[in-house]
Amino acid sequence: MADIIIKNGYILTMDPSADNIKNGVVVIEDGRITDVCEKTEETADTVIDAQGSVVMPGFVNTHTHAGMTLFRGYADDLALSDWLENHIWPAEVELTGSDVYAGTRLACLEMIKSGTIAFADMYFFMDEVGKVVESSGLRAALSYGMIELWDEEKGKRELKEGKSFVNEWNGKADGRISAMYGPHAPNTCSKEFLMKVREQATEDNAKIHIHVLETEAELNQMKEQYGMCSVNMLDSIDFFGPDVLAAHCIWLSDGDMDILRNNNVNISHNPVSNMKLASGIAPVTKLLDRGANVCLGTDGCASNNNLGMFEEMKAAALLQKVDTMDPMALPARQVLEMATVNGAKALDINSGMIRKGYNADVIIVDMNKAHLNPLYDVPSHLVYSAGSSDVRTTIVNGKVLMDDYGVVCMDEQKVIDEARDAAADLISRVDAKK
Amino acid sequence: MADIIIKNGYILTMDPSADNIKNGVVVIEDGRITDVCEKTEETADTVIDAQGSVVMPGFVNTHTHAGMTLFRGYADDLALSDWLENHIWPAEVELTGSDVYAGTRLACLEMIKSGTIAFADMYFFMDEVGKVVESSGLRAALSYGMIELWDEEKGKRELKEGKSFVNEWNGKADGRISAMYGPHAPNTCSKEFLMKVREQATEDNAKIHIHVLETEAELNQMKEQYGMCSVNMLDSIDFFGPDVLAAHCIWLSDGDMDILRNNNVNISHNPVSNMKLASGIAPVTKLLDRGANVCLGTDGCASNNNLGMFEEMKAAALLQKVDTMDPMALPARQVLEMATVNGAKALDINSGMIRKGYNADVIIVDMNKAHLNPLYDVPSHLVYSAGSSDVRTTIVNGKVLMDDYGVVCMDEQKVIDEARDAAADLISRVDAKK
Repeated sequence: MADIIIKNGYILTMDPSADNIKNGVVVIEDGRITDVCEKTEETADTVIDAQGSVVMPGFVNTHTHAGMTLFRGYADDLALSDWLENHIWPAEVELTGSDVYAGTRLACLEMIKSGTIAFADMYFFMDEVGKVVESSGLRAALSYGMIELWDEEKGKRELKEGKSFVNEWNGKADGRISAMYGPHAPNTCSKEFLMKVREQATEDNAKIHIHVLETEAELNQMKEQYGMCSVNMLDSIDFFGPDVLAAHCIWLSDGDMDILRNNNVNISHNPVSNMKLASGIAPVTKLLDRGANVCLGTDGCASNNNLGMFEEMKAAALLQKVDTMDPMALPARQVLEMATVNGAKALDINSGMIRKGYNADVIIVDMNKAHLNPLYDVPSHLVYSAGSSDVRTTIVNGKVLMDDYGVVCMDEQKVIDEARDAAADLISRVDAKK
Repeated sequence: MADIIIKNGYILTMDPSADNIKNGVVVIEDGRITDVCEKTEETADTVIDAQGSVVMPGFVNTHTHAGMTLFRGYADDLALSDWLENHIWPAEVELTGSDVYAGTRLACLEMIKSGTIAFADMYFFMDEVGKVVESSGLRAALSYGMIELWDEEKGKRELKEGKSFVNEWNGKADGRISAMYGPHAPNTCSKEFLMKVREQATEDNAKIHIHVLETEAELNQMKEQYGMCSVNMLDSIDFFGPDVLAAHCIWLSDGDMDILRNNNVNISHNPVSNMKLASGIAPVTKLLDRGANVCLGTDGCASNNNLGMFEEMKAAALLQKVDTMDPMALPARQVLEMATVNGAKALDINSGMIRKGYNADVIIVDMNKAHLNPLYDVPSHLVYSAGSSDVRTTIVNGKVLMDDYGVVCMDEQKVIDEARDAAADLISRVDAKK
């Protein structure tokens, strides 16, 4: 007897070796998908009727700062330096562990509701983030964001904190949590520090999450300091490898793209944040043409301002089309791969496809809605017509986290109220310092 | 005694002469807003508690082809000529009046659900569109799309059809419907035809809806044919005026912008469609800086692929920021004006603000959701965080069309099912011709 059977749904497998099934069945047992078929004799404790819905792998959000959900809409439409120096940083100074706990819980609630099954996070008070992920039922690749700022003593403290987090959390929560090293960026950490991080990560068999070439300012700063860009500098210290997740990667030369591809670096594209902060447009189609693993991330809620992967997919597809002036660029199927298969590859989790033996990280998307009819092509609708609120069921590791729009793994109103209270208290402390 | 009282909501007035009200009341009687205040002694048949919600003017979608909702997702990620010539046009040839009726009804359902109170439409079988608008309760500025193609006889027939529609429908449905002349574009209609349309529109006191400079191909074609661009050609025949609604306006020179501004032409910006078809990026901030009336439209569902104005607002703001590399470009407040005040001005309807004496075209947006908390700034959340599914109530002309997520002016499932059936039948006819 299985744990869960999902029946009557359109199975969008995202599996290159398997067709989609128009009216199919997914069988789940012990956290894994044990069968994907047209009909089954199997029985289960829980039978979900997915009539009129698409059954597909949940989304992998490969770059965010979940705790920043407390800053959603706090400082918008500002110049980057004003935004950071006068609003975000002064607020982050006041952040406590319980603020990050409340903000991350709200982020997890939002992700569960919008069909995300795993996320890569880089922030502070990461023990609190680990606790939230553990209790929420989500998967996550977590990293303590280390900012060294060319201060050797600070660097030592940061690496110690990063290492202690990795040691404590890697593999926790039945393997749902992996811990990564999170050196912030090549223009906020020295070359020497980044070399140490690389060494430590290899020793601990932990992956690395880092911002790379998000802004033109970083590019200019690096050229001035090292006579080469971030990618070249990181390559010169053998930093790259398939265990590196590089966020943003906007200001890349053709040579940089080859380096990232040849080193099998995972690239997290964050189009909404890049547009909102006017950071620029990443050369996604060029990277994909080279065979690079490009996945999608929302970035934090201070620069997005939500964590919806549907919105991110649509923005990614539209932005590449208008940037390349080619309406065929980044078609729906390819952007869906970025949001599922490629993201799972980047975080090295056995998810991203509806396939026998894979993690039961499955979402059900309700297509019986005005804005989703008529239906000719499922990938097109998912990318261009659907929204976060069309997700009705989210299953992670074989556990139902949201069942027919009702979140069952946490008290939704309580999470919203507590985050709201934490935010009000935080901002009153920030304002008191002004 | 009033008809409707909305209480306990955050009143976002969009009225430059009035503040927003944190906890306020809107009183509605005989289709008009009769009071906007903090408290009232007034009573009403219907009292709506908007606790935790924003009460604001509904959206005005200034450019769409509602009947094309039947083609939602039918042909995506294609080159423009392939899309038009091999997919959209062959399908449009098979369209019947009842197809357009079914597609437009689905479009109206989607618009009501996503907070749109009025739309500007250009398509065929416009009597069917008029009937749907009349029964749905929405407002609309409707035009029969006249395509002359340098064929004088065809031009006569098209103008006759356009005129007959204007004469029959202008002012219908208690004034909710206005009828416009809809010459398709300067590169599909001759100069002589456009002069006749201008003359006829003035004579009939009807407005004009036209596509202008949507593609670079149009710009090149016009230069070759007339030695000048569309804007100069139209200006040379005194086509422009405040009664003209020009859709897209992407390929504008600085001089073109001055002409549009000086003639008080209304410009409908359609960012999602422009991105998806790789048409280009309209110079919206430059137009607004000149004082031009720029409003927002979704375009039809073959190139968007939904009719959500929330998504359109976010795309507009993000696209201007990254295009100008200025994160302060097109801030939330300004894009909200485009979607409400400016759109109402373009369609010449007394809507777009919550203000005494204005049409009671009001929506209520539910802010008690994970992705809309915490809340620091209402315009930011509406533009950057919210989605179409956050609209809980839509009121047009003092009538409740959707009440707490339940559409009351039509049978939602029936509308979806009938549109789905019409689409299946249409496509089977198209395929039979292949």
